[in-house]
Amino acid sequence: MVDNAEKAWKLINGGIAAPKGFYAAGVKAGIKYEDKYDVALIFSDVQAQAAGVYTRNLVKAHPLYLTQRHLENGQARAIVVNSGNANACVGEFGDQAAFAMAEVVGMYLGLEPENVLVASTGVIGVEMPLDRVLNGIRVASSVLLNDVVKGIRGQKELADEEAHRAALAIMTTDTMVKEYAYEFPCAQGVIHLGAIAKGSGMIHPNMGTMLGFLTTDADLPSEDLQRILGEAVEESFNMVTVDGDTSTNDMVLFLANGASGITPDGKDRSNFEKMVKSMCVRLAQDIARDGEGASKFMEVLVSGAKTKEDARKIARSICGSSLVKAALFGEDANWGRILTAAGYSGAEFDPNKIDVLLGDLIVAQGGKGVAFSEEKAKEILGFKDVQIRLNLHYGEEHATAWGCDLTHEYVTINGSYRT
Amino acid sequence: MVDNAEKAWKLINGGIAAPKGFYAAGVKAGIKYEDKYDVALIFSDVQAQAAGVYTRNLVKAHPLYLTQRHLENGQARAIVVNSGNANACVGEFGDQAAFAMAEVVGMYLGLEPENVLVASTGVIGVEMPLDRVLNGIRVASSVLLNDVVKGIRGQKELADEEAHRAALAIMTTDTMVKEYAYEFPCAQGVIHLGAIAKGSGMIHPNMGTMLGFLTTDADLPSEDLQRILGEAVEESFNMVTVDGDTSTNDMVLFLANGASGITPDGKDRSNFEKMVKSMCVRLAQDIARDGEGASKFMEVLVSGAKTKEDARKIARSICGSSLVKAALFGEDANWGRILTAAGYSGAEFDPNKIDVLLGDLIVAQGGKGVAFSEEKAKEILGFKDVQIRLNLHYGEEHATAWGCDLTHEYVTINGSYRT
Repeated sequence: MVDNAEKAWKLINGGIAAPKGFYAAGVKAGIKYEDKYDVALIFSDVQAQAAGVYTRNLVKAHPLYLTQRHLENGQARAIVVNSGNANACVGEFGDQAAFAMAEVVGMYLGLEPENVLVASTGVIGVEMPLDRVLNGIRVASSVLLNDVVKGIRGQKELADEEAHRAALAIMTTDTMVKEYAYEFPCAQGVIHLGAIAKGSGMIHPNMGTMLGFLTTDADLPSEDLQRILGEAVEESFNMVTVDGDTSTNDMVLFLANGASGITPDGKDRSNFEKMVKSMCVRLAQDIARDGEGASKFMEVLVSGAKTKEDARKIARSICGSSLVKAALFGEDANWGRILTAAGYSGAEFDPNKIDVLLGDLIVAQGGKGVAFSEEKAKEILGFKDVQIRLNLHYGEEHATAWGCDLTHEYVTINGSYRT
Repeated sequence: MVDNAEKAWKLINGGIAAPKGFYAAGVKAGIKYEDKYDVALIFSDVQAQAAGVYTRNLVKAHPLYLTQRHLENGQARAIVVNSGNANACVGEFGDQAAFAMAEVVGMYLGLEPENVLVASTGVIGVEMPLDRVLNGIRVASSVLLNDVVKGIRGQKELADEEAHRAALAIMTTDTMVKEYAYEFPCAQGVIHLGAIAKGSGMIHPNMGTMLGFLTTDADLPSEDLQRILGEAVEESFNMVTVDGDTSTNDMVLFLANGASGITPDGKDRSNFEKMVKSMCVRLAQDIARDGEGASKFMEVLVSGAKTKEDARKIARSICGSSLVKAALFGEDANWGRILTAAGYSGAEFDPNKIDVLLGDLIVAQGGKGVAFSEEKAKEILGFKDVQIRLNLHYGEEHATAWGCDLTHEYVTINGSYRT
């Protein structure tokens, strides 16, 4: 269900270190578990332009303040990420810990701390085991510098394995790695885009415990990056709902180091922007698909809305409804719950005009149930990917949101996360 | 945890028919199940003043439009309610069915249809089996008229059993009857207040699939009733959250038939209003306690807010958070999720000032985790009733909301509701 607009780019092997001049590493620092990758390092061998989008939760984790500050000049060379602890709501210690992480990365990689961005994910309100985190950074830095040497020797592909470990290190309750790379042959040469993400429970509009990192070797100023990222996030990460909660820690960062020497323009520029959005949508879909305990993936397409914002509100409201999610789990064609969720979304529409479809099956027309084949509905709801479509017949705008079902497994996972 | 303000009134046996001149009956009409009470009738033997509060969902069931219309004159004599079918989103048939219900009640009880209010609850988008519903109304009317005769003979207490069946008839996935009566000896004599309610899944601010009916023999004009009811609902039914969904069918109705001959004034008037609110809070708490699949009841008290609305937003956001609810189920003192839910509530506060308590146990102070006894926390979360308290230290306003935990049972119930 990825955006099927003209594909000027293609998917290639690799991830966050696929663009020229980018390296990444992941190590096991023992932050929460003995045997899990939990510290990731992303590095550009030249100064990069940078952009960031952050959670809108009023309660923000300590690394967010630091990263926002370090991004004020629109530049960065490295990103350090830990899982296993959110570094949130722990007072002054949290600010100090976030700065220590940046400082130690800088020390080992020869950067100013201000050139390092920091992200964390994990449990809130518990001081992080800083010694272990910093030790992990030390090991990750040494692995990474080793890779840079391989790169200098023209063997950067040997470093791909390490970059994959960075993708592993940012995962928490995720069950699958979210790591992609695109190659975009444009008029002036080839541009690459790499990305990793994590996100499972607590995913919601405005980004609950969700981290995304994008890299490109294109040459673009940070203001452009910021606009491109902002627009892409709006139609991707912000349209994912797993359980309606937004987190204290979420951010998406985008680095562009210009190593390709190419500034895409004209049609290439427009395709570059589409590619970034396509990448974000791909990661967002993966996040929905990987919702905590999810057994089914749901895509909600709302069309015929008066405004874009109305279309988004409705799509997200449906994806976030516990009752719709439970009905999806039970493969129950309970379209009344879909209409109900649209009704309390806060969007404006006429309940007597709305059509509801499950896949291609019309279940309600003009706000009213129609006779439909229960067998066919059962078949559609039996698939792992389920599409719900609403046409409001009330305007020209549309939006898409993604979510997952609500399962027993979700309750089990979230009943005992902290301990 | 009922409002402990001065109790000028006392709880007595009985329910909706406890006030003078009120009768109620419930019968098994076989609407969805063979052996369930599913049609309820509430009747005043004299004209009553009436008030109503309705769902704010944009998608409204057919009986809501009818009831709103019939309440325009502020008067009513009867309420008919069915469970097993919502009579929602079925087009013109729905409007006709709702009117037929009012018309048939009128026919059997000798009233104008405009004097009859209609409420429904159950599955959305399926035409109700109108013949069975109307037949149920016929039987209920005959039972009820029989009770009126008992009342005339001075044996109204013999009719209480029937009134109890009305409380049973409005239940859907509810596991306990919600039925209370108060006696209020005021200066001029005794006033009664009776009530029944139903509500389980889909309970949320603005009232998801929730029905409440109140009766009193006090003598008050409908404008006063409307204000008193509106204020009471705001701090009771609208502060209950089970799963974040609001329904198409919800309403609370209040009839006052003046049969006591008393219009409470002065302190009595103020106590009367408190009594109505206390009744609504009691029903709201019952609804939260009876949330679908709930194993625990949660009361969230927010104090020190800048505005009442901010306090309410935060309290409801916490009660509605799937992650808080799952942590409660798992008895996990994950207070970070409580802060997170406050953070995305949309309310204004300073995250660095907030205190969080589980029962009497401080778990966070000034927005920062404090060392606390895990054993003590486990004990507090082990109770069936759990209190979460937040002091924002940001103003003078406070609010209370109620909810329940998220359990495997919730998923099971809602995965197969329709079928």
